Amino acid sequence: MLTLYYARGTCAVASHLALEHTGAPYEARRIDFKTEQQRSPEYLALNPKGRVPALATPQGVLTETPALLQYIAQAHPQSGLAPLDDPFGLAQMNEFNSYLCSTVHVNHAHKGRGYRWVDPADTAALEAMRRRVPQTMADSFAMIEGGMLRGPWVLGERFSTSDYYLYTIASWLEGDGVDIARFPRVADHFTRVGALPVVQRVLAAQAA
Amino acid sequence: MLTLYYARGTCAVASHLALEHTGAPYEARRIDFKTEQQRSPEYLALNPKGRVPALATPQGVLTETPALLQYIAQAHPQSGLAPLDDPFGLAQMNEFNSYLCSTVHVNHAHKGRGYRWVDPADTAALEAMRRRVPQTMADSFAMIEGGMLRGPWVLGERFSTSDYYLYTIASWLEGDGVDIARFPRVADHFTRVGALPVVQRVLAAQAA
Repeated sequence: MLTLYYARGTCAVASHLALEHTGAPYEARRIDFKTEQQRSPEYLALNPKGRVPALATPQGVLTETPALLQYIAQAHPQSGLAPLDDPFGLAQMNEFNSYLCSTVHVNHAHKGRGYRWVDPADTAALEAMRRRVPQTMADSFAMIEGGMLRGPWVLGERFSTSDYYLYTIASWLEGDGVDIARFPRVADHFTRVGALPVVQRVLAAQAA
Repeated sequence: MLTLYYARGTCAVASHLALEHTGAPYEARRIDFKTEQQRSPEYLALNPKGRVPALATPQGVLTETPALLQYIAQAHPQSGLAPLDDPFGLAQMNEFNSYLCSTVHVNHAHKGRGYRWVDPADTAALEAMRRRVPQTMADSFAMIEGGMLRGPWVLGERFSTSDYYLYTIASWLEGDGVDIARFPRVADHFTRVGALPVVQRVLAAQAA
């Protein structure tokens, strides 16, 4: 059985949604960022990066959302979460997921975690980063609106892990000072994914 | 046939190395960053992100290094570039590649491309980012040295795309103010990969 370590409101939601989608049993363990549980010796022994998500599998622990999403899809091929029989389609899924991970998530992180890239005492630089987040997030979502989101799902007619990942990151827009209504196709996708029973179940579990 | 669009010294070297490794015919087209060719209408029509690498395939254009590396391995299964028959091993490859893409490359980008995340006119913030790069790159390579690089190759006994990607990013350390000798296992890996005929051929082709 797979065990996901997640924290509320983080990118780990995407992997949680993919696991729930499979219909297979799994365990979801919450890591409390408020008490810095991700920095506890127990958690660092599991994931030295001190981040979420981490996925404990029978063969060992995996990290990094794009890797987890493809792994969950491959471990549950009947789930239809990825075009496993189509290397180009799979690459399109990974291309989209990699963009969310390395560009959009990174943009977002400059709001609350700018200390990763400057002296944490440099409040002016931290504030300069924070100020720019509405712009960088809007620029990224303009790219997504403009074609990366093919419609009705990210990959076109085929639903995939990318839909859960996009939903997860799009849920940050409001907090990042970006009105999702500026991106009608993204907003429609967000509404449709958010209405799925899988999503409702995971949101309820994370809120409990 | 696959066509790679690359620029010298960028992360596109990793995909170039993987293509050369396959032994199959491919084309490598250089994009000149000095003349901002990546912003030309012709290139933006191919890759709206205005970045490299981009890989033109018979089915369409792909971007994002982790996606390209797995695609190149899948398109050439005989190359042995990825543990395609082992979902967990493949996830370990993608985990490593995703870390390089979303954390290590991002650290590096704060040296010369900090304008992505602050007002480009804010020279103090840009300098604050630049100053921090030796620290963030060293921190990431300490993680790699400490276990992510299993040895002798990234995945252990098995060579993979991750070895070319690590080699590519490690080649930036000197310019980022980090002495690779601080990380003996990484330095040894860098020397061994750098000595491979595949690497020598690609470096010569890019220098030509």
